[in-house]
Amino acid sequence: MAFTPLLTELIDALRCLPGVGQKSAQRMAFSLLEGDRSGSARLATALAKSAAGIRNCNRCRMYTENEICEFCSDASRDDSTLCVVESPADVLVIDNATGFRGRYFVLLGHLSPLDGIGTSDQGLDLQAARFLDLYLKEVFIAYNPTVEGDATAHYVAELADAQGVKASRIAHGVPVGGELEFVDGGTLSHAFSGRRSLFQGKR
Amino acid sequence: MAFTPLLTELIDALRCLPGVGQKSAQRMAFSLLEGDRSGSARLATALAKSAAGIRNCNRCRMYTENEICEFCSDASRDDSTLCVVESPADVLVIDNATGFRGRYFVLLGHLSPLDGIGTSDQGLDLQAARFLDLYLKEVFIAYNPTVEGDATAHYVAELADAQGVKASRIAHGVPVGGELEFVDGGTLSHAFSGRRSLFQGKR
Repeated sequence: MAFTPLLTELIDALRCLPGVGQKSAQRMAFSLLEGDRSGSARLATALAKSAAGIRNCNRCRMYTENEICEFCSDASRDDSTLCVVESPADVLVIDNATGFRGRYFVLLGHLSPLDGIGTSDQGLDLQAARFLDLYLKEVFIAYNPTVEGDATAHYVAELADAQGVKASRIAHGVPVGGELEFVDGGTLSHAFSGRRSLFQGKR
Repeated sequence: MAFTPLLTELIDALRCLPGVGQKSAQRMAFSLLEGDRSGSARLATALAKSAAGIRNCNRCRMYTENEICEFCSDASRDDSTLCVVESPADVLVIDNATGFRGRYFVLLGHLSPLDGIGTSDQGLDLQAARFLDLYLKEVFIAYNPTVEGDATAHYVAELADAQGVKASRIAHGVPVGGELEFVDGGTLSHAFSGRRSLFQGKR
């Protein structure tokens, strides 16, 4: 016996959530239909409101409910440093974990020459140019160490360099608290090639 | 930096889904806001439609879009056996896995004397009486082997017995493909007390 059409529709719609397969979606659908269904109504309202009310910031493309996001409108932030990230979620993670107090720019994608995603796709060329402000001194590139991340970082660095702005990339290596024994080869290779001299300047 | 109010609302609403904590809800919210947001709109529509269109069957309380569900309206099913389960999800699992071709009855809850949930709560007493049909010969009780499941099974069995209907409970024991070594004590104890004689009738 299969699901009723509306139940099938709900389960299929839930499967668009990341990390949710057929089994989890079924469990979620049954849970939403249980009891007074207030959770279901609340979620439907929140989805509609957020889809209508949340937009990308005009300056940095972070999610915001206004024209300009909190990060761009905060006057206490440093205009001379800019952190370039792939997605809006990265901005929050970085802002909460690091002491970075500069501006952000969300590229909303990455270059992927192998898949034919070049600089003209996703508006990367036009949009990326926008971040090269008058006061900018250094661009931090916070992209994952994948082939696409490397290509994107290289492209952003070249753009910055053409404007005389210093470009740097966040360090990739052994995670804090990680065990050397269990670190994968790629990470270890990054950690070795990115080693830093101790007692810098002494010898 | 915290989330915007609408984003916070969306994340909180997603947390009502089973198995979704703060981190997963954040990931889901950001994923729903990405790109063309068609998944978000589809999910909102599916939630509203299912909350309005899916109801409990008048006879067995399974989820249905009509007055009577497919299980109750299927004339080829056997009226002499009835399977009593806790939730609508159980009906589908049992129907897909077993060859059971009788009717179902969803109690939508369990007795829990320790929490003060007795037979008069949740309409268990009135509703449970409804399943004792004229043609009924055997009630299969498919409840989990917990304290609440045991109490509910006992209550349903007594109801059936008062009407001269045979009551049986599904077997609890070592799962097929399970290793004795890794089975918990409670399951093993159930498996021992519920052992079945081989060559039945010979000695």
